[in-house]
Amino acid sequence: MFKRFYSAAKSTSVANLELATRQQLYMVDASSPGSVFFLPHGTRVFNKLVQFMKVQQQKHGFTEVISPLMYKKELWETSGHWENYKEDMFRVESNSGNNSLDSVYGLKPMNCPGHCVIFDRFARSHHDLPLRLSDWSSLHRNEPSGALTGLTRVRRFHQDDGHIFCTRAQVGVEIGRSLQLIKLCYSVFGFKKYRMTLSTRPDSHIGSVEDWDSAESELKKALDNHAGEQNWALRDKDGAFYGPKIDILVTDRAGKEHQAATVQLDFQLPQRFGLQYQAEAGPETPIMVHRAVFGSVERFMALLMDEYQGNWPFWLSPRQAVIIPVNESHLSYCQQIHRELAQSTETDLDAPSALHEASFYVDIDARAETVGLRTKDAIQKGYNYIMLVGDREVAAGTVAVRSRESRKVQPMNIEEVRSAFQQLELEYK
Amino acid sequence: MFKRFYSAAKSTSVANLELATRQQLYMVDASSPGSVFFLPHGTRVFNKLVQFMKVQQQKHGFTEVISPLMYKKELWETSGHWENYKEDMFRVESNSGNNSLDSVYGLKPMNCPGHCVIFDRFARSHHDLPLRLSDWSSLHRNEPSGALTGLTRVRRFHQDDGHIFCTRAQVGVEIGRSLQLIKLCYSVFGFKKYRMTLSTRPDSHIGSVEDWDSAESELKKALDNHAGEQNWALRDKDGAFYGPKIDILVTDRAGKEHQAATVQLDFQLPQRFGLQYQAEAGPETPIMVHRAVFGSVERFMALLMDEYQGNWPFWLSPRQAVIIPVNESHLSYCQQIHRELAQSTETDLDAPSALHEASFYVDIDARAETVGLRTKDAIQKGYNYIMLVGDREVAAGTVAVRSRESRKVQPMNIEEVRSAFQQLELEYK
Repeated sequence: MFKRFYSAAKSTSVANLELATRQQLYMVDASSPGSVFFLPHGTRVFNKLVQFMKVQQQKHGFTEVISPLMYKKELWETSGHWENYKEDMFRVESNSGNNSLDSVYGLKPMNCPGHCVIFDRFARSHHDLPLRLSDWSSLHRNEPSGALTGLTRVRRFHQDDGHIFCTRAQVGVEIGRSLQLIKLCYSVFGFKKYRMTLSTRPDSHIGSVEDWDSAESELKKALDNHAGEQNWALRDKDGAFYGPKIDILVTDRAGKEHQAATVQLDFQLPQRFGLQYQAEAGPETPIMVHRAVFGSVERFMALLMDEYQGNWPFWLSPRQAVIIPVNESHLSYCQQIHRELAQSTETDLDAPSALHEASFYVDIDARAETVGLRTKDAIQKGYNYIMLVGDREVAAGTVAVRSRESRKVQPMNIEEVRSAFQQLELEYK
Repeated sequence: MFKRFYSAAKSTSVANLELATRQQLYMVDASSPGSVFFLPHGTRVFNKLVQFMKVQQQKHGFTEVISPLMYKKELWETSGHWENYKEDMFRVESNSGNNSLDSVYGLKPMNCPGHCVIFDRFARSHHDLPLRLSDWSSLHRNEPSGALTGLTRVRRFHQDDGHIFCTRAQVGVEIGRSLQLIKLCYSVFGFKKYRMTLSTRPDSHIGSVEDWDSAESELKKALDNHAGEQNWALRDKDGAFYGPKIDILVTDRAGKEHQAATVQLDFQLPQRFGLQYQAEAGPETPIMVHRAVFGSVERFMALLMDEYQGNWPFWLSPRQAVIIPVNESHLSYCQQIHRELAQSTETDLDAPSALHEASFYVDIDARAETVGLRTKDAIQKGYNYIMLVGDREVAAGTVAVRSRESRKVQPMNIEEVRSAFQQLELEYK
């Protein structure tokens, strides 16, 4: 059952270790099978994805929390994980006789129980709902070591996790907004091939049939609105016993489907934790919605690596531009351009950098190689833009810009470059 | 010995659970003693601190990585932690007979061994040095449960961690830059009372006396430069056996000193991991510098809570401004102001939010209470600015702004407010 909250990544085809190595995205190591080391460029992509989703979450009324990674067995018993999901969880033990722990601890595979603890701590009224909590914690699940692959089948991962605590009357709007956000994000990333499915009440379930019927009807309405009428698949009786759910499946270039986003209703967990809010007529139990747009950030990155084949769009690219001086005499001008576009150790270290300074991932390739070879190398490395600087550019105060895709070269001054780069980021291109 | 890399937070006096609760900063719970739950407002402060330090790190040439949280015992044997630090580490075990782990795993108390694994994976030349890696991973240390307190003595914490792999010749510059960054940051946060100490070669040490002498002389030079000549304390023979170190101690309002920043040379770890780079004359072992400016982000937040007593500067404040409509008829105008200053669920959900949109933590208090009471409440909650809206403001297209500290009210239009807020962020005020 618990697998279904958000399934851990299970597919293997989109992993691309060759690309990961060539672009310095990530590595794996025998010291921690299933836990990816994000290298500098992979971390740039990872962080940009997080930054992107955080601004969307903020607009959607989510408020972020940071919750612990390990919890006592008693919490997992309350949530039901110890009974149903224990085999997939890691246990945490003390190494010390003196500092021994006062209970068995489990490393969290999901954020939901921790969010129930937060909900439960404060008196909540219906005015406080919907309460939408987001969390970017590391999650751990015990996958068999033989099955671990790249970014898609891992033991440690992150989700763009969100839990919405709401009233029954709010379910429809919240589901609709969740689907709207998913569609919007997938269009930003250029996913064209994905489909939505609705899994409904199984024979064995908790909660009243009326609650299920009402919830399923809200989910169907939202799907009709956002997927297009009938443009989604029904998985009859395939819901979890605690609530119906919508899954979004993305098809990779090899034609394989991967579960990414999910929106799941949960009638059960709030009951297990005894959560309550004060409604006008008295205390009520909230409904919990588990939702994620990326799902696993790691798997989503794998899907993007497959989708873009290493040709990252500018805004997401770990190598946005490279400056190539024709010869040594052009280097100091190149360094000046570099300072204007990228944060750099060459700039003033006596003042703090500003929080929101627009800065891009720009390098200088001043190797003693021909311009042709360095250009070819830059394309192979995936730089989105190549800026050549020779006598003419230094004299005119410009750079000769070409894109990764086109040989066409265009002279631009630094202000034009900066504003073009900013526009690309603004449009997520 | 390992304690000294960065000591876990040990003090208790600056914890302020009353303030934490009143401002919704953090909570602790019996389900995970020693692991703090950052509530929405605490998460805002935490994230702003991280964002602040990331832009400084970028300017200082650091490149971020994301490394695993659990590693096999064999790695900890290589690093020496298993022999020297095991009692302070948590062990990770499988709960499953089928998915049993192929080794004992330890939950990381420090990032350095993982960074050595990254360094070691690729061929490195002296052109690649200094290599400066930063990491924001969760760290875990097994503190006795009876001693756990608020943010200052915890089992799970985060560091603004950075490791510099460099040549012998680069040590002086790198240490100097690290001290420069520490001084700069501490001045941003307004710390006036802090001091620097240098701990030198103990009788029992590894590495040649010449290496130690040269390193200590570099550290002294850097201290003279940045602390002021003789304006730092010598702790003779108090260095770790693997290298000398500089500690920065911050004094809280109660007069108690807390270790925050640290800069430590390490001759040993690169040797234990067999790290090498290609120098002009052949392979060499790099020197490793462990450095952190905040130290533990959790403890640094505790120091800031003590320093500001809940009166956060605007840029760091989880509650930057509140809009108070005099009565209901002014509400829709207030909502419009709110949309202009904060990301809001009321805005267009059909377009993605931009990555760098300037947005502030602004609320509306439209409760049916007197303006006086709501103003008092806003001050008590710590809002930096209070914007009153009545008939006059609606008619003039302005808000009546006052600060938390002064009763003086000033009419401003929305563009003036936005630009004043941006200026405050820019100046870290």
